[in-house]
Amino acid sequence: MDTTPHDSVRPIDWRDDALWLIDQRRLPGEHTEVECRNVEAAAEAIRNMTVRGAPAIGITAAYGVVLAARNRLARAPGNWRKDIEADLTLLAGTRPTAVNLFWAIERMRNRIARSEGDPVAELLSEARHIHDEDIAANHRMGKLGAALIDKNCAVLTHCNAGSLATGGYGTALGVIRSAWDAGRINGVFADETRPWLQGARLTAWELLEDGIPVTLLAEGAGAWLMKQGKVGWLIVGSDRIAANGDVANKIGTYAAALAARHHGVRVMVVAPTSTIDMNTPNGDAIPIETRAGDELLSIGDRRVAATGAEAWNPVFDVTPAALVDAIVTEKGVVLAPNAEKMAALMGRTGDQP
Amino acid sequence: MDTTPHDSVRPIDWRDDALWLIDQRRLPGEHTEVECRNVEAAAEAIRNMTVRGAPAIGITAAYGVVLAARNRLARAPGNWRKDIEADLTLLAGTRPTAVNLFWAIERMRNRIARSEGDPVAELLSEARHIHDEDIAANHRMGKLGAALIDKNCAVLTHCNAGSLATGGYGTALGVIRSAWDAGRINGVFADETRPWLQGARLTAWELLEDGIPVTLLAEGAGAWLMKQGKVGWLIVGSDRIAANGDVANKIGTYAAALAARHHGVRVMVVAPTSTIDMNTPNGDAIPIETRAGDELLSIGDRRVAATGAEAWNPVFDVTPAALVDAIVTEKGVVLAPNAEKMAALMGRTGDQP
Repeated sequence: MDTTPHDSVRPIDWRDDALWLIDQRRLPGEHTEVECRNVEAAAEAIRNMTVRGAPAIGITAAYGVVLAARNRLARAPGNWRKDIEADLTLLAGTRPTAVNLFWAIERMRNRIARSEGDPVAELLSEARHIHDEDIAANHRMGKLGAALIDKNCAVLTHCNAGSLATGGYGTALGVIRSAWDAGRINGVFADETRPWLQGARLTAWELLEDGIPVTLLAEGAGAWLMKQGKVGWLIVGSDRIAANGDVANKIGTYAAALAARHHGVRVMVVAPTSTIDMNTPNGDAIPIETRAGDELLSIGDRRVAATGAEAWNPVFDVTPAALVDAIVTEKGVVLAPNAEKMAALMGRTGDQP
Repeated sequence: MDTTPHDSVRPIDWRDDALWLIDQRRLPGEHTEVECRNVEAAAEAIRNMTVRGAPAIGITAAYGVVLAARNRLARAPGNWRKDIEADLTLLAGTRPTAVNLFWAIERMRNRIARSEGDPVAELLSEARHIHDEDIAANHRMGKLGAALIDKNCAVLTHCNAGSLATGGYGTALGVIRSAWDAGRINGVFADETRPWLQGARLTAWELLEDGIPVTLLAEGAGAWLMKQGKVGWLIVGSDRIAANGDVANKIGTYAAALAARHHGVRVMVVAPTSTIDMNTPNGDAIPIETRAGDELLSIGDRRVAATGAEAWNPVFDVTPAALVDAIVTEKGVVLAPNAEKMAALMGRTGDQP
């Protein structure tokens, strides 16, 4: 596995027999960690967005299963395999859209079924594998995605699909890091991404930590930026990719992709294959989480919206495959994705170019 | 002039020999007024966005000229016509995009040239005319625009083109008020409109004051809302309309119009003819104001963006005429605007359907 300085931000860490998560709600003002010693704490951290980003949610859930096993085993050693099902259900109920969550839980469930020795050690090993594989996948995707940028240009990203959203290095930001290092891009624009401001708070923070300059803009300015002719690619992550290549990602991605198509800006979606859900035929079948309106009506502790106003707060949208130029995974790149190409990708074994 | 309860919000008022402006930076939390007794105060109120919205800026400038004349006359009665030119220049330098500002200053300059009696009384009368005509125009546009909504639907608006942005009643919100009263629309969506949150703070506030329910959404959610199929019209104001029908309006309008076209949602721009600039051939020639990045990097007093991040903060964009279905003015409606139709509209005299 490549270990560049870009791995410095580790949103998720296992140490001292506990799961430690950077509290992403407090960045960039405060850099603090939350310690989780039981599955309830891990589940709550996913739900309240202490940790966010599809791959990071999956990894957190995997470590959450380790905590669950340890505690179930201590309480009722003979029943832990049965008892832990309630914990897996708890984890699965935290957030509905990112399929990496369900993928990671399923993988841990399979490992539980196969466990013969010390289940905690075995499950911890599996969670660490999931974590390490994610970082390795990000480095591989970084190279594959950067290679697609054939003409020096500026790029625009949306939300945070970086180290903080993954095991480390990032998906969309992994490509941007790799392309920046290779001199393939001459500027990074990030929209602030309402309501949680992941762009302004998280993407800007981690790119600047790596010495990559970043220019923020209001989300509504993305189309106008593209009109200026400097942006060659819109590069984003994903929370779930359907079997036909439709892409669920942070609300606003669809609007940005529409503007990109209008301006001839290409759209790159960067996500490990754990984000691809072959059981979901298309974007219409992806459950889209709607969160509390308060996330829009207030900023921090301050109410900004008029009293009495309601809010509609879907936090993801679906960009149809027809608007996507490339899906970059650790197994390879799918250009102009469709159901046939996605099936071919998922049928591949091992890493291929 | 129609006087409905909707006129209750008066962002601009002349009383006690002074200009009073609702401080729109503090709404909806605080409802306070700023008193202007000289042209410098009026100019600063425009620059710092105590008052905003193209027609409101024009009206404020007109009253600012009254204050200028009074003070110049008191200081040097023989030189006031010459001295006041510096004040007109000061007012014209406050903000570059809204053409209503220059239109109002020009109209006041013409009145200065014609003045024979007490110039302060004559100029105050002219400013009051500009103010009253704007409100009357809004009521007329409200009816004309509402008549275009031929099928009961929900509408989406962007920024604030309401009572607060005008002399009263509003342009886009005038149409929405009129259409709501006529039972032609079944829901109003407003995006929050970063960075100043005019949608969340001002549009929601004044619609709720009138008992019209409003649902807020993040700007990035507008395209996804349209995808749900409930929105029939995107209805916005404008800061300058070029001779070919290209429309400058709050940043984000262009992105929303692109999404609207993609979804078959029609686009209505509502603006008095004082917003139409026949000397600007097309949108490329409209000066677009870029404001300080701090407006994006901080919210209120709180820094939200990562330290070291830059921001690009254009506060308007241009929607090409080809994306506009209707421009509604007090002189009539222009469908599918182009240079020929705009010239015909501006050649009309008086109010016509």
